[in-house]
Amino acid sequence: MRRDLNGLLFPRSVVVVGATPIPGKLGNTVITNVSNFPGRVYAVNPKYTEVLGKPCYPSVSELPEPVDLAVIVIPAEGVPAVLRECGQKGIKNAVIISAGFKEIGKDGIQREREVVHIANEYELNVLGPNVLGLISTRVGLNATFAPRTALPGPIAFMSQSGAFCTSVLDWAWKEKLGFSHFVSLGNKAVLNECDFLLAFAEDPETRVIVAYLEGIQDGPRFMEIAREVTREKPVVILKAGRAEAGARAVSSHTGTLAGSDHAYDAAFRQCGVIRARTVEELFDFAYILSRQPLPKGRRIGIVTNAGGAGVMAADAAEWEGLTVARLRDETLQALAQTVPEEAAIYNPVDVVGHATLQQYQAALELVLADPGVDLAVALSAPHPILRFADLAQAVAQAQRKTGKPLTVSFMAGELGEEAEEVLRRAGIPSFFDPARAVRAVAVLAKYAEIRTRPKQAPPQYPVAREKARHILGEAQRRGRLRLGLEAMDLLSAYGIPVARGGLARTAEEAGRLAQELGTPVALKIVSPELTHKTEVGGVRLDVPPQEADRVAWELLRNVRSRFPEVQIEGVYVQEMLPPGREVIVGMARDPTFGPLLMFGLGGIYVEVLKDVAFAVAPLSRPEAEELVELVQGKKLLFGVRGQPTVAREALVELILRVSQLVAENPAIVELDLNPVLCYPDRVVAVDLRLTVSEEGI
Amino acid sequence: MRRDLNGLLFPRSVVVVGATPIPGKLGNTVITNVSNFPGRVYAVNPKYTEVLGKPCYPSVSELPEPVDLAVIVIPAEGVPAVLRECGQKGIKNAVIISAGFKEIGKDGIQREREVVHIANEYELNVLGPNVLGLISTRVGLNATFAPRTALPGPIAFMSQSGAFCTSVLDWAWKEKLGFSHFVSLGNKAVLNECDFLLAFAEDPETRVIVAYLEGIQDGPRFMEIAREVTREKPVVILKAGRAEAGARAVSSHTGTLAGSDHAYDAAFRQCGVIRARTVEELFDFAYILSRQPLPKGRRIGIVTNAGGAGVMAADAAEWEGLTVARLRDETLQALAQTVPEEAAIYNPVDVVGHATLQQYQAALELVLADPGVDLAVALSAPHPILRFADLAQAVAQAQRKTGKPLTVSFMAGELGEEAEEVLRRAGIPSFFDPARAVRAVAVLAKYAEIRTRPKQAPPQYPVAREKARHILGEAQRRGRLRLGLEAMDLLSAYGIPVARGGLARTAEEAGRLAQELGTPVALKIVSPELTHKTEVGGVRLDVPPQEADRVAWELLRNVRSRFPEVQIEGVYVQEMLPPGREVIVGMARDPTFGPLLMFGLGGIYVEVLKDVAFAVAPLSRPEAEELVELVQGKKLLFGVRGQPTVAREALVELILRVSQLVAENPAIVELDLNPVLCYPDRVVAVDLRLTVSEEGI
Repeated sequence: MRRDLNGLLFPRSVVVVGATPIPGKLGNTVITNVSNFPGRVYAVNPKYTEVLGKPCYPSVSELPEPVDLAVIVIPAEGVPAVLRECGQKGIKNAVIISAGFKEIGKDGIQREREVVHIANEYELNVLGPNVLGLISTRVGLNATFAPRTALPGPIAFMSQSGAFCTSVLDWAWKEKLGFSHFVSLGNKAVLNECDFLLAFAEDPETRVIVAYLEGIQDGPRFMEIAREVTREKPVVILKAGRAEAGARAVSSHTGTLAGSDHAYDAAFRQCGVIRARTVEELFDFAYILSRQPLPKGRRIGIVTNAGGAGVMAADAAEWEGLTVARLRDETLQALAQTVPEEAAIYNPVDVVGHATLQQYQAALELVLADPGVDLAVALSAPHPILRFADLAQAVAQAQRKTGKPLTVSFMAGELGEEAEEVLRRAGIPSFFDPARAVRAVAVLAKYAEIRTRPKQAPPQYPVAREKARHILGEAQRRGRLRLGLEAMDLLSAYGIPVARGGLARTAEEAGRLAQELGTPVALKIVSPELTHKTEVGGVRLDVPPQEADRVAWELLRNVRSRFPEVQIEGVYVQEMLPPGREVIVGMARDPTFGPLLMFGLGGIYVEVLKDVAFAVAPLSRPEAEELVELVQGKKLLFGVRGQPTVAREALVELILRVSQLVAENPAIVELDLNPVLCYPDRVVAVDLRLTVSEEGI
Repeated sequence: MRRDLNGLLFPRSVVVVGATPIPGKLGNTVITNVSNFPGRVYAVNPKYTEVLGKPCYPSVSELPEPVDLAVIVIPAEGVPAVLRECGQKGIKNAVIISAGFKEIGKDGIQREREVVHIANEYELNVLGPNVLGLISTRVGLNATFAPRTALPGPIAFMSQSGAFCTSVLDWAWKEKLGFSHFVSLGNKAVLNECDFLLAFAEDPETRVIVAYLEGIQDGPRFMEIAREVTREKPVVILKAGRAEAGARAVSSHTGTLAGSDHAYDAAFRQCGVIRARTVEELFDFAYILSRQPLPKGRRIGIVTNAGGAGVMAADAAEWEGLTVARLRDETLQALAQTVPEEAAIYNPVDVVGHATLQQYQAALELVLADPGVDLAVALSAPHPILRFADLAQAVAQAQRKTGKPLTVSFMAGELGEEAEEVLRRAGIPSFFDPARAVRAVAVLAKYAEIRTRPKQAPPQYPVAREKARHILGEAQRRGRLRLGLEAMDLLSAYGIPVARGGLARTAEEAGRLAQELGTPVALKIVSPELTHKTEVGGVRLDVPPQEADRVAWELLRNVRSRFPEVQIEGVYVQEMLPPGREVIVGMARDPTFGPLLMFGLGGIYVEVLKDVAFAVAPLSRPEAEELVELVQGKKLLFGVRGQPTVAREALVELILRVSQLVAENPAIVELDLNPVLCYPDRVVAVDLRLTVSEEGI
């Protein structure tokens, strides 16, 4: 559902319900802030006829007009009634600042349900409850109880933490960082991040969307919206709560590897959201993305008058995945004629300390103009012959001439303060630490790639969907929710290549199946209770077909005698395959984002080295290709000295088919194809573990 | 050599050679800065009898006394003569600010050699040339041409970049960061980082030693000194120039993996130097190490009145290798009685926004007092009922009571400024970003571990050193500088366990050797030119002893016919070993630090996953144990489900013996034991590559 939030974000008239002239009360702080709003402002409070010079009415229903926005600051108990009054009055937007809802447990949860119910009944856009409020500098409204308002600017900000909102407001004031909208999301009873993503995307004065989130409410909707929005505007999110996931034990099963944080990482990557690790990154990224143009590539030019700073910047460029640009000959020649003799003209270009302002600027312009340079940093230490403020002017001029993105590190304290003002006016971010300047400019390259990434729908292979549903339905009907090799047909139904084989109920049947296969076979015990087949002695490898019945008989006897209580379904008879590269393709359902695919190299790569990658299904082809690329050990698949490369296309297709399988069949709760054997000409799934939900196909 | 730098760092009398009253000249800036020195100050300049009120003499020899320190600011050509005069006069310490030496090439190099020569002749302590100068706030001397001096404080700082010195001075002034000594190292012709490490270590007012370095001149001496100094005082170094090494191609040979930056990482780790990645880290670490006590462990307590900040801090704790402390029951009970009902009493402790100052302070004191908490962060967002300055006082009080280390993140701008001053006076670092506060406090835990790490000398195994020297000498004599299996005796000489075997010159000899071994054998072609034996078809495995002569004959014939130009030494006949875990132990000589050992899991772990660790030899036992621990894949050696653990003790001893071998035999330029096979009861070196220097044993 696409909500019209214009009345919320661009209201023309506002009422503060619970406004009071008594200082120190929340309702007083809010009406004080709101009273600066240039539109029509009303108060509601039965005790007064006027509050801070604004007309005050005993109730919402007695207001002279259905205002665009109601800001509610009364004790929680009274909120549902007031909200209903708003609905009846025809008011479409409300901010519930009051606390005392979901966050306090039992009674509050019930009360919040009422709020949702009323909001649905009257189609109200409700922000909160339990919020700091919202600020729209676009219309001059501060509907919060914060001691500080926001400066106008191109950044739209939303935060799940109200405390963090006040922090950011106070800090941004000092840093002169401006916002178009500033929204405290609170309990997200009705409106959540998705609604604001859409609304901010539509606001022409918002250039960057920034959020602090502790969770996302509707993962699939978020991804759908974010995929589109990030093609238009950068979205930077600090999602806190990584540690929990990281602390989990790791095993070879997708279910335990796929902590929720992996899902956030994957989902953000797939839909082009830039994830900030820290508050510092969040606003460094937001600021530069709102002020600097996007580069064409990742090649950085570094200009400095202090050697050490250039070295530090080059180090940082490597960490950030930038390439230190190779300057073309024309640039080098021109530089040689421009800068002092001792200068280093190869990138990083060190014009040395006694370079004049003109020399520095000329060098920077030459570097920026080089077609091999996509973006740049300009660095300087204090030098007696250079005023930083002049240098800042020169840098800003150089940047305007070429239009290429740039950050600055003037490594100074007070000497650099005037320059900072010049740079701020020019929209050029400036940092003491050269590494931070490089990190900031690097995010532009990242976003430029996000904007231009291929846009493809997940492929839809023709599959035997009914057959798959039948297998899953049978498992549910029989109460066999953990399946293994006996469910290989499920994979075949989706065109996933599997090793030839079949389930034998008896030793004789095993012998027959082996003869049919006509090759040496692997015999694997099939039992829902024995999931570690090899460890319990339930596997025999490389059995000649003519011996299969005898070996199967022994195998069944041994396992039955060791585990008399365990139910044995039979023996899976499978063609022996030549050794190949083992990979694992798995899926677990993430509570937020749904089917989370995992890909990794098999065995120890997963268990010990944790070298795995995740993506939310369904995947497009480029996403499946990326999934394979994200694994560090990919070189083992596609080219180690003297070894053949495996069939990349076939592997990607297998992943895409698994993706379609799990996306179309929500009854599959967990899935592991482990191993999938990869060869130069094909890939084959050899073993399977599957968990089916108790109901629902 | 241990130099007496007292006259340099704590002079009582100073002369500025090249002092001038003409503003804008370097000699004027320097005498202006020096003129504030409370000791005796002289100028030397033939044109004046007085400069800035200080007595001026035509030459150094005419000075009325042999001052403690000469500061030289004259054109480079005149420097050697003046320096000689200093020596003749009995002046023992000089700072050569003048540029025009090594850094300008040819003439300058010659001139710098002269400086070194004169310094040696007269036993002069010379700082520079090409420096900003030095500041000793301990005696009130600013002998630099910087526009700003340093505030007094507990941090001793040295920098190889003069420009970075001016940056730091200006920035530190703004941040109110104080220094005991401030030294620009310049060309390091005579004095270098080692000399100042020693001198700063001895200064009782210096609590932390901080350096910006682009290289280290004498690696072994640096390590020897730093090992000792870091047990007394923290040493934090920003070593720039990582990127170069990281960019190198990686292969399975130690020589190419061991980029110089790996050597710096290893050397710093081994001698307890804390390496900062960025300028921000450098001074965050320096400040906290100079002001906060050391913790007993890594368990962090987190107290906040804003939930989001607590989550961010917990995330950061994980990145920094801290453990979020588990509070004991008594603490939890006491907290429950102290904080508001809605508070979260489990660590991170969220006292919630409306907690009073007293509640916040009580909670923080309870957390700090918990014996399970080693260090803490205190976090806050702006709240109407809390003044940050009061909260800062409360935090400082809580810290004083328990004496446990602490950092603060008050997430605010102007509202927090007064508090910052309070915290600064209390020596408590404070940051806007909670993650940065956690990173800072974490470095205390790191340094606490450095101080208490075991101190052990490298073991000295009794070895057949003469035999090893003989093998290396023979290789040099014959000009065979690349050796393989034929040099296995070299390993045996140092007690390194090797697979049984020997070199056969002929097929018949191979047969005889195999019969003697009495087991199936591996036959491996031995040729200095064919280093990839397997790839050229030069290996036969699992050959029964009775067939060894025939197979060896075929092998020799095949290889000779394929490579007719290549010299074949014979066939190495080696017992076949059962499969085991493969590891690689290698060594390359680093230009700075000397023998750099590498350890890793064999094959793809090295080539693809780059999962290797480095250490500078000779290693102590704890260092060898650490080397093994540093490899991520160590779990493959010591415990993966269902697999036996390999002999750790034997592996560590093998590494220690290799360490002794390469430390005692500088003629070994490069060495690779690859693979070393590891079993539950032993480890065995199976193959070897070795490069010998052309001369010198």
